[in-house]
Amino acid sequence: MLFFTQCFGAVLDLIHLRFQHYKAKRVFSAAGQLVCVVNPTHSLKYAPTRCAAAQTSAEQGILPPCHHHEAVHDPQLVPCTCPLYSCPWEGHLEVVVSHLRQTHRINILQGAEIVFLATDMHLPAPTDWIIMHSCLGHQFLLVLRKQEKYEGHPQFFATMMLIGTPTQADNFTYRLELNRNQRRLKWEATPRSVLECVDSVISDGDCLVLNTSLAQLFSDNGSLAIGIAITTSKVHNAEDEM
Amino acid sequence: MLFFTQCFGAVLDLIHLRFQHYKAKRVFSAAGQLVCVVNPTHSLKYAPTRCAAAQTSAEQGILPPCHHHEAVHDPQLVPCTCPLYSCPWEGHLEVVVSHLRQTHRINILQGAEIVFLATDMHLPAPTDWIIMHSCLGHQFLLVLRKQEKYEGHPQFFATMMLIGTPTQADNFTYRLELNRNQRRLKWEATPRSVLECVDSVISDGDCLVLNTSLAQLFSDNGSLAIGIAITTSKVHNAEDEM
Repeated sequence: MLFFTQCFGAVLDLIHLRFQHYKAKRVFSAAGQLVCVVNPTHSLKYAPTRCAAAQTSAEQGILPPCHHHEAVHDPQLVPCTCPLYSCPWEGHLEVVVSHLRQTHRINILQGAEIVFLATDMHLPAPTDWIIMHSCLGHQFLLVLRKQEKYEGHPQFFATMMLIGTPTQADNFTYRLELNRNQRRLKWEATPRSVLECVDSVISDGDCLVLNTSLAQLFSDNGSLAIGIAITTSKVHNAEDEM
Repeated sequence: MLFFTQCFGAVLDLIHLRFQHYKAKRVFSAAGQLVCVVNPTHSLKYAPTRCAAAQTSAEQGILPPCHHHEAVHDPQLVPCTCPLYSCPWEGHLEVVVSHLRQTHRINILQGAEIVFLATDMHLPAPTDWIIMHSCLGHQFLLVLRKQEKYEGHPQFFATMMLIGTPTQADNFTYRLELNRNQRRLKWEATPRSVLECVDSVISDGDCLVLNTSLAQLFSDNGSLAIGIAITTSKVHNAEDEM
């Protein structure tokens, strides 16, 4: 009986994913871009890897603080860069990607330009949408976070981080683009390294920031499509293009 | 003596404006674009044309509410569209521009692409920076407003409105672009008509919105340069360019 219930659940999930993917393809089909449906992670309550401190934070509705730099003793080792959990894992930078895939089940996508389709934007803060993006011989972590910087006023923050060193990160430029309802919003910047903390990037506001009303204008049936492109860096002077 | 004091004040103002203009030219000279230095209007206290209700609002640090639609009795007449004051003037749409120039001393600039250099970004909210932009045979009103939607957290809101009807406004697309410190933020949308209220556009958040931290990243010595371009409208589908 349990087996049949599980099978039925799996079929429902597949139908839901197929529907989300169909919606995304319908919107972006002409661009011929890879669309990735990203489901939110809205509760840290049942995460098996978090520590007690993170559990307390999650129960209070606060995202766990960043302990990355304090935790590293061996300079060759880096801590887990997953922004969802305060994970005790540490390892070499080269194996961070496989740790994120295997332990935190974060998907990885290939392609110079992809569309990140974040579903269920209405879920309460704090909520994260995360994928990895493999491009130009490197892996990047895209984090979309819904968070209340001002109590009662959730905002959306989107940033891209290189799974590499800050020096390597300086060689790239990432672009996030929203396009709907005759409005277009583009954010371009140099990615930060995952060795820096995603929480501090977001608290500094040095990323794409959307108020709830603007996020709604760009959403379609509770899903937000963000076009992502990564290029090798060129000098961004105020002179060019403006 | 008074004459000499006034002359000295005027010379100081000229030096200050020259310095601002030099700074702007240094940043944007390669683009060959017209740079307009826009000083803020940070107090409504001594405005000669505002009504008592607006005075009370200003003294409480609140921008006056929009009474435009209530005030119009003759459908041929439109009220004053200046977002700074609750002005009792009304007239035909064709003479709004001359009213704004003469009564509210709002500058008008010519050119397809201009740079709006808003000075003194540190001034407390509510503050407005306003110019008119003449382009493609029409006049547009650019409003940058510093306002506290959430108490203690000022934000910047920028929008462009056509001094014309909503039907005419649908024929255009405006672009606002910030570009500094290896970051670039672009907002593109259809301008609203000045017959709609700028206050409601801002309270809906349907415009370029900047947190203080992001505004600081894009500022240079307390001045924020916004590149402005207006084009005739083309269909903005999610398919194109993403």
